[in-house]
Amino acid sequence: MRRVSPAEAIRSKYPEWIVLVVARDAAGKANVMPAGWAMICSGTPLYVAVAIGHGRYTHECIQATGEFVFAWAGEGQQELVDQTGSSSGRDMDKFAQFDIAWSGPEATQVPLLEGAAANLECRAVHEYPCGDHTIFVGEVLAAHMPDTPVRKLDNFSGSYSVALPDRGR
Amino acid sequence: MRRVSPAEAIRSKYPEWIVLVVARDAAGKANVMPAGWAMICSGTPLYVAVAIGHGRYTHECIQATGEFVFAWAGEGQQELVDQTGSSSGRDMDKFAQFDIAWSGPEATQVPLLEGAAANLECRAVHEYPCGDHTIFVGEVLAAHMPDTPVRKLDNFSGSYSVALPDRGR
Repeated sequence: MRRVSPAEAIRSKYPEWIVLVVARDAAGKANVMPAGWAMICSGTPLYVAVAIGHGRYTHECIQATGEFVFAWAGEGQQELVDQTGSSSGRDMDKFAQFDIAWSGPEATQVPLLEGAAANLECRAVHEYPCGDHTIFVGEVLAAHMPDTPVRKLDNFSGSYSVALPDRGR
Repeated sequence: MRRVSPAEAIRSKYPEWIVLVVARDAAGKANVMPAGWAMICSGTPLYVAVAIGHGRYTHECIQATGEFVFAWAGEGQQELVDQTGSSSGRDMDKFAQFDIAWSGPEATQVPLLEGAAANLECRAVHEYPCGDHTIFVGEVLAAHMPDTPVRKLDNFSGSYSVALPDRGR
């Protein structure tokens, strides 16, 4: 074993899943950003957590409205991940700009993403400081999946693909 | 899109990575448990987070000593994941019982796992309540990797494999 820089060790993380975080701002405009830093964090009640950088527009949205949708990106959403990851909702309406397909929520006011592997409607129950990010913990109020199952997309260090088990050995 | 039970939606998460969490108890005995609920959560400073159930032995260990190692399980550690996931350090010394290969740490008192894809030595800087789990946030003090690279193992809903991108289409 050899000591390495933390940056080198962190590259071991791939593939990492991709969570699309949807939230509305105080004026009601909906926004989407992709996040890799997300996890489930309680079983009963069911909670999920996502770490959002302080400067992100989504950070202000969740603080303003206390709600978000946690959606695992689905096969076919590669372009959406790139588009929403390289732009800020502070400057534009991403839903209009990128023609994002959505459906109406049931438990919150936050739109659901068509094409995601699953959508979890969440009420923010904790907001924890964490270095240069904030951990937002959401209680899952309702869950939705596509009529025809969609496979989850993973981040393979810059390219996005469905992950399959290596059974070739 | 159709409304589903949260339990059904959560199954979309696979593959999920497997983090081996190493910590010592107050008496110095080292222990390992596998956790899927883990993420990176700050860039500068570099922090990682892991959600640990209240009843887990590792929960008391981190509370007692304030240190842990966050290691992505490596190819070849399938059996170790099963062994350490189906037993409790409260009842045994897992390092002795399962003959776990380890190396000495540099920044903490917590042993490093031979065979993991990477080992991150962490000092617990936050401990956040989160439903039936606690989120432990660790500052990464030192990082280590095997001399010969080891691929990360992912959890494909019960079976553990290296995850490869589906490029077959």
